[in-house]
Amino acid sequence: MIDAAFMAHALSLGRRGLGQAWPNPAVGCVVVKDGRVVGRGWTQPGGRPHAETMALEQAGDAARGADVFVTLEPCAHHGRTPPCADALIRSGVARVITTMQDPDPRVAGRGHARLREAGIEVEIGVGEAAARADQAGYLTRIGQGRPRLTLKLATSFDGRIATASGESRWITGPGARRAVHAQRMIHDAVLVGGGTARADDPMLTVRDLGVARQPVRIVAARRLDLPLGGRLEGSANDGLWLCHGPDAPQDRRDHWAGLGARLIELPLDRGRVDPAALLNAMGNAGLTRVFCEGGGSFGAALLQAGLVDRLVGFTAGVALGAEGQPSLGALGLSALADAPRFALEDVRPVGGDVMATWTRA
Amino acid sequence: MIDAAFMAHALSLGRRGLGQAWPNPAVGCVVVKDGRVVGRGWTQPGGRPHAETMALEQAGDAARGADVFVTLEPCAHHGRTPPCADALIRSGVARVITTMQDPDPRVAGRGHARLREAGIEVEIGVGEAAARADQAGYLTRIGQGRPRLTLKLATSFDGRIATASGESRWITGPGARRAVHAQRMIHDAVLVGGGTARADDPMLTVRDLGVARQPVRIVAARRLDLPLGGRLEGSANDGLWLCHGPDAPQDRRDHWAGLGARLIELPLDRGRVDPAALLNAMGNAGLTRVFCEGGGSFGAALLQAGLVDRLVGFTAGVALGAEGQPSLGALGLSALADAPRFALEDVRPVGGDVMATWTRA
Repeated sequence: MIDAAFMAHALSLGRRGLGQAWPNPAVGCVVVKDGRVVGRGWTQPGGRPHAETMALEQAGDAARGADVFVTLEPCAHHGRTPPCADALIRSGVARVITTMQDPDPRVAGRGHARLREAGIEVEIGVGEAAARADQAGYLTRIGQGRPRLTLKLATSFDGRIATASGESRWITGPGARRAVHAQRMIHDAVLVGGGTARADDPMLTVRDLGVARQPVRIVAARRLDLPLGGRLEGSANDGLWLCHGPDAPQDRRDHWAGLGARLIELPLDRGRVDPAALLNAMGNAGLTRVFCEGGGSFGAALLQAGLVDRLVGFTAGVALGAEGQPSLGALGLSALADAPRFALEDVRPVGGDVMATWTRA
Repeated sequence: MIDAAFMAHALSLGRRGLGQAWPNPAVGCVVVKDGRVVGRGWTQPGGRPHAETMALEQAGDAARGADVFVTLEPCAHHGRTPPCADALIRSGVARVITTMQDPDPRVAGRGHARLREAGIEVEIGVGEAAARADQAGYLTRIGQGRPRLTLKLATSFDGRIATASGESRWITGPGARRAVHAQRMIHDAVLVGGGTARADDPMLTVRDLGVARQPVRIVAARRLDLPLGGRLEGSANDGLWLCHGPDAPQDRRDHWAGLGARLIELPLDRGRVDPAALLNAMGNAGLTRVFCEGGGSFGAALLQAGLVDRLVGFTAGVALGAEGQPSLGALGLSALADAPRFALEDVRPVGGDVMATWTRA
């Protein structure tokens, strides 16, 4: 029970790194000596230092003989930092408690083994369920080669995202908009389709929450037909990735690359950038958690391809009627039984709106 | 504080009559002697006996010198029952505590006055806010001549009520369907448009909740073009009201009237039964709380006419896409600022779905 409480603390520290630590997992670490916490750490923005390094440094000599709670198996390989398993051994800790093995093939049990070989007591599996939930993005990337994808829908209660004339400011209130920024903050990247980029020319940044590292901004636009002279263009050199098709005109490629955007060419599927190839490219680039903010037809394509792991819905107390723009495009379902189903994870009022989170059933 | 607690108890008793007591208000009553509850009553199915009668009968001789908590001013007129004010006087109670005056012009302070004239101490306003919420239907009927209208929407999270082919069983789960029956139970009538009647041939009854009095079932169908040989027709003599236009064919009127349905002719508005006239007719018939279950174009007409006081939304974790049938028809809005706005009253998970209640802002 006491172990579970210290691990819960380590998990809460690890969550501080969500959206900040990629391509590394966001890990938390607590060093406990004689029942007192003597060191706390979490993966720092950009992925290093690692949580263990930070916590051991804080503990100093107190680490000798201590219990160390880590929310993922310590690494055993030389990456951009030396192995954390070695640092733990050097600091003379007595016991290391982890939630689970790190599925990264470069670790995959070697961290635990190295600690045990050095005579350190190792206990695995404390707080595993919570850790798997926190690490869902990292685990999806390691297991499936793509990031975990969350789709946001912010609609009227009849499922509309704009009036017939395209008016959408504001359907949901300031509380919901702030919650959207909080969601961006805990994701590695924010993704929109070309239609949304053209309609809204959105910044897609996290505002007013004091983040260390902004999410990557990704636009999927087959022909790079994006607004000029606006916010996206003006910030193209600041973490903007443009995923386009093979038929994107060379002059547009040159224009955006010249501004500093990162261009990623992808194959097409049914007339748009292939969603599966898009997700794989994001996984290859190291992204673990991606937050898609529409629009409706892009979201429908992601759903159709079975790539949406999680939905965050904001519902406002307003009716827009059937002429309003739908939150999701056509899905081509022939039967209700084929419709993508999600399980309710959480629902709460946010400001005057409803925020519901669903995960793939 | 103790008065408030006894009134809260009386209010909870009064709520038992919601949907059962019309055309009377659903009232609760508690008789308290020496700090002990010696009588409890609530308006009985069909509107009588009244709450006070039941509670005083239960209290018997103990009512002498007692405090009586009533959730609405006791009546002072001879309706289908003798005045409750007189019954209270006869039973020798010392003090009567109420939430508010009854706005029915036949009462309107006369109940309180009669009690005071008889030397009974009267206190008004305890628990008034809660009573106004419970009595919203009754107050709307007395104040505006029409029942309070709640519109139900049961949709996918993209706001669809059926697939393109019309498949709608089941979008929401058994928990939400049970909650719908619980909503029907606390309403005087269930209302649908002709399209829903034709598509679903619904029973619209409360099932598996042991109600004493089923809600009236109302279908608004301009030309009485309703399904034959099915559930509605088979139960036409059991509280089915059909609201039709002046152009409903005589043979259909005769057919349904012959089966026992109550026919109500109403003027038209933009090609359908005039929503305002419909609500007024329901108010004239004594209905105080009406639960509308669609369909989309009928719901939109009620919203457009400003007649929807409350929305109950059930949202399922399923996506149906833009080909699915919309939960609301066209509203003809020219600007977002003109869209009908509602304030969130409550949101909760129900089974695996979300149930959100909104009241007109």
